[in-house]
Amino acid sequence: MDIHKLDKYAKSLIKEAAGRIKASFNTELIIETKSEANDLVTNIDKETEQFFIGHIKRDFPDHRIFGEEGFGDNIQDLNGYVWMLDPIDGTMNFIHQKKNFAISLGIYKDGVGILGYICNVMEDDLISASLGEGAYFNDLRIPNVEQARIEQSIIGINASWVVPNKYIEHEGMIELVQTVRGTRSYGSAAIEIAYVVTGKLDAYMSMRLSPWDIAGGMVVAKEVGAIVTNLEDKPINLLTQNTFLVAKPGLHKELVTNYIKLK
Amino acid sequence: MDIHKLDKYAKSLIKEAAGRIKASFNTELIIETKSEANDLVTNIDKETEQFFIGHIKRDFPDHRIFGEEGFGDNIQDLNGYVWMLDPIDGTMNFIHQKKNFAISLGIYKDGVGILGYICNVMEDDLISASLGEGAYFNDLRIPNVEQARIEQSIIGINASWVVPNKYIEHEGMIELVQTVRGTRSYGSAAIEIAYVVTGKLDAYMSMRLSPWDIAGGMVVAKEVGAIVTNLEDKPINLLTQNTFLVAKPGLHKELVTNYIKLK
Repeated sequence: MDIHKLDKYAKSLIKEAAGRIKASFNTELIIETKSEANDLVTNIDKETEQFFIGHIKRDFPDHRIFGEEGFGDNIQDLNGYVWMLDPIDGTMNFIHQKKNFAISLGIYKDGVGILGYICNVMEDDLISASLGEGAYFNDLRIPNVEQARIEQSIIGINASWVVPNKYIEHEGMIELVQTVRGTRSYGSAAIEIAYVVTGKLDAYMSMRLSPWDIAGGMVVAKEVGAIVTNLEDKPINLLTQNTFLVAKPGLHKELVTNYIKLK
Repeated sequence: MDIHKLDKYAKSLIKEAAGRIKASFNTELIIETKSEANDLVTNIDKETEQFFIGHIKRDFPDHRIFGEEGFGDNIQDLNGYVWMLDPIDGTMNFIHQKKNFAISLGIYKDGVGILGYICNVMEDDLISASLGEGAYFNDLRIPNVEQARIEQSIIGINASWVVPNKYIEHEGMIELVQTVRGTRSYGSAAIEIAYVVTGKLDAYMSMRLSPWDIAGGMVVAKEVGAIVTNLEDKPINLLTQNTFLVAKPGLHKELVTNYIKLK
């Protein structure tokens, strides 16, 4: 398999899918809830995933797809080629804001990320990376992330993790919020990872993300020297939900050592 | 004074200022701190304010300017025409992200907001409003905001107000975070007000904003039926710093009644 051809193919699918999502604003949106009241899905999430799957299954019948909406394969291992796809990362933003959502895609071969994409649909931006060949913001090479002092850092963290919750000791989060320069919250893991790899945020953390939320971003992060682990400083398991931290080196160590204590 | 001519004039200044800010990314940024370590200002904030003042003083010598960077007038009352200007609202974003900042401008006559503008510089979006004549997103009329149930609301609130702080009882904020559908934080009051008036957020609150942060947005909010008060449900005083809440009607009452308790 020629990785450059696969890259070109994936980019063409993403571009067409983004166009379809934009066109969908002229039609009525059908909104349903999934696991809980605020876990939303729309007909467009589903149709976009099916669009990808239809093409991939036709053109690469031995590739498997691990997608948020469940139309892909029942993935129990990462053997061979696995496409990890969130057709709309940030569905709540898609519904409420009609912006600030992304197509997130990672292509893995035998468990190793070889291609990664984050497409901010409404801003017409595509971040892409290819294993060992660097990362790009549209056509511009993304430079390696720099070090950041925690007092001058802007951290992506949702207020949900700063109040008492079942995942993390929130006292450490309070101290973090009071130490950093600022916090932001955008409601899309893929967009927040995109912000870290392009230096707009210095770190982003979450208590619960699925493989398709982060698989694409992880390939990009590696190419620019950003560190990705779960919140226990251990490797991400792309077969299950994970806690998640992506950060500039140095800052990553400081966060897991001094601020993050899981329950 | 013909309000339509003044509107056209203000828009032309904003457009030219936005172009200058974008061009500034090719030059070196000089960053200084103001009242505290994270209160940042750059040469571009200052030059942009001076650009506005130079033109306004030449073309409308009897108008006064109340600007964040202090090059305008010493404003102790709101008699006559007063331009309330934040040349770059979201300076931290301007520095770290090179996006997600706005030019915020309100023009008041004898204390009444007659023209309001929020220009998201990097997205080339201008929200504008004229007293009694409605609000526009670029050339599109912005519809009146609708009611929102708190459980389905997305609220703009910074994590700083959810942790113990000197302004507000944070227990109510914890309950709020756990009640709403989601929270967001973008780091620019003007952009968060722009999100509320265009329905992308249902409410936005802050513990400490200056007149130039909110004067433009307040004119827009009025035209689309969003409610603006301080956090004690009292009118904003545009001569001093204020606590601030802009929200859809109904939701506004619920927030001030059940969740917000100042210290």
